[in-house]
Amino acid sequence: MNEKLEKPHVVIVGAGFGGLSAIRALNESPVRLTVVDQHNYHLFQPLLYQVATAGVSADEIAYPVRAFLRRQKNASFHLAQVKMVDLKAKQLETDSGAIAYDYLILGIGGVTNFFGLKSVKENAFTMKDLDEAKEIRNHLLKVFERASYERDPQRRRSLLTFVVVGGGPTGVESAGALSELIRLPLAKDYPALDLAEVRILLLEASDRLLAAMPPDLSAFTLNALTRKKVEVRFGAAVESYDGRQAKLKGGETIPADTLIWAAGVQASPLAGVLGQPLGRQGRVRALPTLQLPEHPEVFVIGDAVYLEDSSGASLPMVAPVAMQQGERAAKNILRLMQGSAPEIFEYRDPGTLATIGRNQAVAAIGGFKFRGFPAWVVWLGAHILRIIGFRNRLIVLINWAWDYLFYDRAVRLIEPDCRKEVKSGIILPQEGKP
Amino acid sequence: MNEKLEKPHVVIVGAGFGGLSAIRALNESPVRLTVVDQHNYHLFQPLLYQVATAGVSADEIAYPVRAFLRRQKNASFHLAQVKMVDLKAKQLETDSGAIAYDYLILGIGGVTNFFGLKSVKENAFTMKDLDEAKEIRNHLLKVFERASYERDPQRRRSLLTFVVVGGGPTGVESAGALSELIRLPLAKDYPALDLAEVRILLLEASDRLLAAMPPDLSAFTLNALTRKKVEVRFGAAVESYDGRQAKLKGGETIPADTLIWAAGVQASPLAGVLGQPLGRQGRVRALPTLQLPEHPEVFVIGDAVYLEDSSGASLPMVAPVAMQQGERAAKNILRLMQGSAPEIFEYRDPGTLATIGRNQAVAAIGGFKFRGFPAWVVWLGAHILRIIGFRNRLIVLINWAWDYLFYDRAVRLIEPDCRKEVKSGIILPQEGKP
Repeated sequence: MNEKLEKPHVVIVGAGFGGLSAIRALNESPVRLTVVDQHNYHLFQPLLYQVATAGVSADEIAYPVRAFLRRQKNASFHLAQVKMVDLKAKQLETDSGAIAYDYLILGIGGVTNFFGLKSVKENAFTMKDLDEAKEIRNHLLKVFERASYERDPQRRRSLLTFVVVGGGPTGVESAGALSELIRLPLAKDYPALDLAEVRILLLEASDRLLAAMPPDLSAFTLNALTRKKVEVRFGAAVESYDGRQAKLKGGETIPADTLIWAAGVQASPLAGVLGQPLGRQGRVRALPTLQLPEHPEVFVIGDAVYLEDSSGASLPMVAPVAMQQGERAAKNILRLMQGSAPEIFEYRDPGTLATIGRNQAVAAIGGFKFRGFPAWVVWLGAHILRIIGFRNRLIVLINWAWDYLFYDRAVRLIEPDCRKEVKSGIILPQEGKP
Repeated sequence: MNEKLEKPHVVIVGAGFGGLSAIRALNESPVRLTVVDQHNYHLFQPLLYQVATAGVSADEIAYPVRAFLRRQKNASFHLAQVKMVDLKAKQLETDSGAIAYDYLILGIGGVTNFFGLKSVKENAFTMKDLDEAKEIRNHLLKVFERASYERDPQRRRSLLTFVVVGGGPTGVESAGALSELIRLPLAKDYPALDLAEVRILLLEASDRLLAAMPPDLSAFTLNALTRKKVEVRFGAAVESYDGRQAKLKGGETIPADTLIWAAGVQASPLAGVLGQPLGRQGRVRALPTLQLPEHPEVFVIGDAVYLEDSSGASLPMVAPVAMQQGERAAKNILRLMQGSAPEIFEYRDPGTLATIGRNQAVAAIGGFKFRGFPAWVVWLGAHILRIIGFRNRLIVLINWAWDYLFYDRAVRLIEPDCRKEVKSGIILPQEGKP
């Protein structure tokens, strides 16, 4: 026990991709490791859009942190929400007490960026955590139930109009998955509804989709979505949304009971209260070694840190960056413990991937470009391998195979909404017993 | 369309075991069928206790009603909560308008019976629907998180005391599953906790468990639970529970942060407002043909109807009774349509089953008694076959196999609670972003 206490205490905040990668890198190292997260699970965020579109169950893309730590003898887990970091006293203030650290890795992640649009924040659906994704699923199914007996054609049209804002991977994947959900399983579930009344819009403020991809893959994506009857609009920026009607810059209004906001992310608010200089998207400007300039024992990784690559472009807020930074931060802590100088972080881009739907994806990997079925196979493999837990992998695979073979979606259940402010105006049926 | 409108309109309220069986029996019959339920899914209630103890996912024991109806051309679904039945006007009043019927089947199910104990109703956990089961799962995991850093031994002891009330199948299955959840996977997740501090009590007011079973199977069950370190107490009746302490008749108090109430069921409150005479447990006294005495076009089935068998004993509130009654009600409607007299309902008891845990169950089937491993195999087969949907069956099987082979539980996730009044006093971590 005494020897254990003498080992340096490394605290990792956040069990996301970056945090998990840091934990793995410190396995069997002579440290005491404490992992702090507000959830008791690691969330595989890249598949949240599939929870929202009823393809996989929420449970299948989440994995208990304690299960992950079972194999790692030097680590323990503390379920808590970090309220503040006292950099001078070297301790975290959480909702269940203070936690002192010798070294700290902050992998606190990102939140949705509404760019100051209050009405959008209040009324749009977002997709950053499990509840939000389930809320979208519930809402989509409720909207169809409601539309199935709505007689006012204008009202029904608004119920059946789905606006997705943001032409990045999340927006593209959501719009594609939404189109397939509606045109395949829901068409069978609601034989009395006229699918010609359904409208899916994808709004993008710039002039192309998937800006991180080569232009020809953007064009391929646009074409694939159009064939799925998604109306893609460029130069379209939302100004406000009241839950019933979206108002665009320029004055156009679109009546729609559903608006999914996938237009931006920013660092978690905790990044803003550390008293450190911030870069774009509220991200902490750290040293290239990921350390805070005046607190070399504190490392920031993932969506919360602002770093630029050699060309001066900011590193994207994606899982591979976070994972490589988690490993770098862990290795730098071990170097500091041995009295060596920490090394700077260098990003090795593994390429970018986005799926558009059945048999359809785009991928840009190390100078090579893939599109259509080959890219889709790459996408499938890359995602299945990155899901944590063999059982989760197996069950996601079964759901995908089911979906693929039977043009169906597994999880078409309306469950009670869990958030305090439920955004769906569609509340149906009333709570309680019959 | 005209011909369709001329067909009699049969409305089935409730997509439980009874409702589904009635729907199936009316497949290809010359009727228009409308199924009304407050949820968009059929729930496989016998496995709710496995959702509560993190064994299977909520999604796996629920099946969309619309998916069930896809194959049945004469049926449609209406998601609505029935507020009242106007027997004279032959119409339902729901939260989304009125629905007129020619024939009505009420399979409105049961709710928890608290026997007038207000404090128990407010503070105990129950297990009648998906939210309630998930609430138990969340609470159990939160209690362990909380206990993992609680230093007051008395407080920790209360956190780790689990009281299950009711020695019927639900109570027995819950206590057994809870013991295995704690002694196997949670012991691995919380290596720092002393399992000797964990206490599981099963309180039964009478003098034996599983009263519907032969006495030697009751004795076998008692023995099996005792070996799982469940303390079974007979003649123990709860008088009150404030969320921290259970008070028994006789004055004994048990400090416990968890009390699961599995002591009784009664008919849904809607049964009580039909203006019909009621039998025990608030169940409607119908004719032996399942019809209401003065409304031969209205049938009541399942937990909501009170009937006696030839020996004068009331039929139990279990799935096989509901399923057979659903079929009988459907056939009687067809007989009425043809001008024939309806037939009386006769229950063919398929036997009773209860599982106690790994390799352990009891079964009494047609004069034969099984216990231990053979009964467990019968239990497994009977339940897997009755789950609706091949995909659900497959995934439940995988989860069970996983659990069985690796002594693990699949779904150890704490998700936000969905009910307005959250019973768990353990709220942790605070809601919101880090």
